[in-house]
Amino acid sequence: MNVYQKLESLGIALSEPAIPAASYVPFVRSGNLVFLSGHLAKKNAKIWVGRLGNGVTTAEGAQAARAIAVDLLGTMHQAIGDLNSLSRIVKLTSMVNSTSEFSEQHLVANGASELLVEVFGDKGLHARSAFGVAQLPLGACVEIELIVEARPV
Amino acid sequence: MNVYQKLESLGIALSEPAIPAASYVPFVRSGNLVFLSGHLAKKNAKIWVGRLGNGVTTAEGAQAARAIAVDLLGTMHQAIGDLNSLSRIVKLTSMVNSTSEFSEQHLVANGASELLVEVFGDKGLHARSAFGVAQLPLGACVEIELIVEARPV
Amino acid sequence: MNVYQKLESLGIALSEPAIPAASYVPFVRSGNLVFLSGHLAKKNAKIWVGRLGNGVTTAEGAQAARAIAVDLLGTMHQAIGDLNSLSRIVKLTSMVNSTSEFSEQHLVANGASELLVEVFGDKGLHARSAFGVAQLPLGACVEIELIVEARPV
Repeated sequence: MNVYQKLESLGIALSEPAIPAASYVPFVRSGNLVFLSGHLAKKNAKIWVGRLGNGVTTAEGAQAARAIAVDLLGTMHQAIGDLNSLSRIVKLTSMVNSTSEFSEQHLVANGASELLVEVFGDKGLHARSAFGVAQLPLGACVEIELIVEARPV
Repeated sequence: MNVYQKLESLGIALSEPAIPAASYVPFVRSGNLVFLSGHLAKKNAKIWVGRLGNGVTTAEGAQAARAIAVDLLGTMHQAIGDLNSLSRIVKLTSMVNSTSEFSEQHLVANGASELLVEVFGDKGLHARSAFGVAQLPLGACVEIELIVEARPV
Repeated sequence: MNVYQKLESLGIALSEPAIPAASYVPFVRSGNLVFLSGHLAKKNAKIWVGRLGNGVTTAEGAQAARAIAVDLLGTMHQAIGDLNSLSRIVKLTSMVNSTSEFSEQHLVANGASELLVEVFGDKGLHARSAFGVAQLPLGACVEIELIVEARPV
């Protein structure tokens, strides 16, 4: 099953990456590596605002992380043209808007990690860091950035 | 116009990178990628101390980020010898010393992003993440790290 | 002296990397670069819980960072097979669980940086960022991730 069939079977529709308003871009390719900008969690096309440990549960945080992963797939599609030519998800970094008491950033990040493995299988297995931040742009509850490897062009 | 003429027209003088006191270095090159260490904001050659959301305004934070970008240019110059051989600013990560209420890290980071585009044009457009941290070394208000791509040597 | 003799002279025994419970892995190699996941500080095989600036001293934080570096060596060994084929420690990122007052994240990170230089000499000199985070997974006091360069296979 190719990646797009897989996405359809998961009921996932890709969206166009949001165009950053500032002097940066959603991704940059260098050799076989593609660096994706930090993507903020969104719900119904608006920033998913909140803080883990204060109103946002771990399960909701994982849903937010999964939603970001869907957005990252849209950006990857735009970056490499054909998601079937992705050779590896290399590194995921998950910044979780956290109170000083909340210590389940890894469970939040799982929402994104698991989707990537559902979609890409072993190619979706990645190195990862997750940590709690004091605050995120626009008050988002989660931000995720990604490095992926594509086949040589 | 080459990069050094551009810098002169912007009134920017490059400085020598500070030599870290510890067991690390300002940059490491691997293949065509150069990884620059996190650079702390400075003002009048001293650490620019403060926190966004508590005494440091967004506009001041953006100025601090721009000042870091100037220091990063000095480090890039040392790293690749000739800034005209830089082929792309790949990825910028901006850590902003933030209260739990401050959510304009992206506007702070713009101070660095915009300078890089002023200097390098389209080559300066980069992937980016920005987030709020609990505190930074020496109390700095902003820290920025960078990955850039240079032409093969 | 090769790297394993050096480790023995330092009294360091490598351990097997912990297998993450989730959909990610301890490292991913892409070309000559190996990306190592964020490793959490451990003491006596358990998560080293605490916060710098509130009960954990800078010296203890540096010990925790050194302990992480030992675990990272174990992961590197598994990743590249022979630590003598490591050509460079490229980039270290140190996330320090910090109160909003603690500003010695760089001194904490030195615990890891100095060990890498003890073990690898000049090849151990790396680019680095260190910053204070609101909280870490499982309440760990320090998390460190690494990018290293290995010889082509």
